[in-house]
Amino acid sequence: MEKIAVWGFNSIPPVAKGLVRDLRVRWALEEAGLAYESRWIGVEDLKSDRYRRKHPFGLVPLVESNDENMIESGAIVHAIAERCETLMPANRRHETLTWMFAALNTVEPPVWNLFTMDVLHADEAWVPLRRPGAVDEVKARLAALTACLEGRDYLLDRFTAADILMTTVLRFIRHTTLVAEFPLLDAYVKRCEARPAFEAALRNQAEGYALNEPATA
Amino acid sequence: MEKIAVWGFNSIPPVAKGLVRDLRVRWALEEAGLAYESRWIGVEDLKSDRYRRKHPFGLVPLVESNDENMIESGAIVHAIAERCETLMPANRRHETLTWMFAALNTVEPPVWNLFTMDVLHADEAWVPLRRPGAVDEVKARLAALTACLEGRDYLLDRFTAADILMTTVLRFIRHTTLVAEFPLLDAYVKRCEARPAFEAALRNQAEGYALNEPATA
Repeated sequence: MEKIAVWGFNSIPPVAKGLVRDLRVRWALEEAGLAYESRWIGVEDLKSDRYRRKHPFGLVPLVESNDENMIESGAIVHAIAERCETLMPANRRHETLTWMFAALNTVEPPVWNLFTMDVLHADEAWVPLRRPGAVDEVKARLAALTACLEGRDYLLDRFTAADILMTTVLRFIRHTTLVAEFPLLDAYVKRCEARPAFEAALRNQAEGYALNEPATA
Repeated sequence: MEKIAVWGFNSIPPVAKGLVRDLRVRWALEEAGLAYESRWIGVEDLKSDRYRRKHPFGLVPLVESNDENMIESGAIVHAIAERCETLMPANRRHETLTWMFAALNTVEPPVWNLFTMDVLHADEAWVPLRRPGAVDEVKARLAALTACLEGRDYLLDRFTAADILMTTVLRFIRHTTLVAEFPLLDAYVKRCEARPAFEAALRNQAEGYALNEPATA
């Protein structure tokens, strides 16, 4: 990875700002101290043939590194982490990857389900019927996760790439009080979000949005 | 990993047979030629303190390898694949991991959503309202995945650990005709399921269920 370009959106609704998954990649790159550029795309361009040739599922993130196209936030963050002892200690690679999969395959599904319900399908008739059960499913996972954080500040005993994924997953329900109901978890998210690399990534992601915002008078 | 024990269920409804995620681990172990034992647990025991001490989220799969507890099907399959050139070619590790994440974080979410709707929540009033949109989401992902399989038999050009995950994900909607609507994808699943290691894993998983089935007269 010599020249790295991260694709992100040039415009999205306010409710999705700071939630799109290119944030995971930007954050990992910032932690690793790797320089990168940005490419901006409209949500409406994801399905274009031109973009699909780069990303078969028509999603963000996409990273272009020299001549290689990289997709899947989990895999891209892992590739960055392999180059950065902070993000994945050499002797704890399996443990880090376990928590990366836990974030994306155990915690994200119920959390994302609630996000889509409240944000993408908010006005649909089925949501009030389904929502209470979906909230219970989120709470069950958050309770289990909180128990794992007892006595430690991060998923492993130190910050790793797994915390990048877990934090960005938990941010999908920032519009609720669910994380706040678990004080250890709430403190964990705030601890991760306070990292300078997170703040830099968030600013960096917002540059794309700023391109298309009307200038304030 | 010297002595390997894989946990699975001793009894589940017929509709879930051959779908529980310990199948992924058993399949990978069979492909890698690694011997393993089984431990069986009831669904009702997942939340017990005893099991939670082994698996913080109270889920299957759990693998005990010497004194280590391994969780997360993606991470366990990856650990097995690291020991097996067939499952993860040394020079294509990133590509294999990318497709593993694509299976679990891009294809599984809509597929699992439809599975839970049809199997776990089948009689609930919200399902008929939500189902058409959920089917469209599955179709969009399957169409993109099919395009990736044009001209090749597997996700990479040869069988890898990623195909284990993708096949088991697609099996979640075996109760529908959705995969069959994409002939390349249908052939892909059948090609993977025809592997002797898959058949051995399926037989192995079913041993737990057999323990608790009433003897036929």
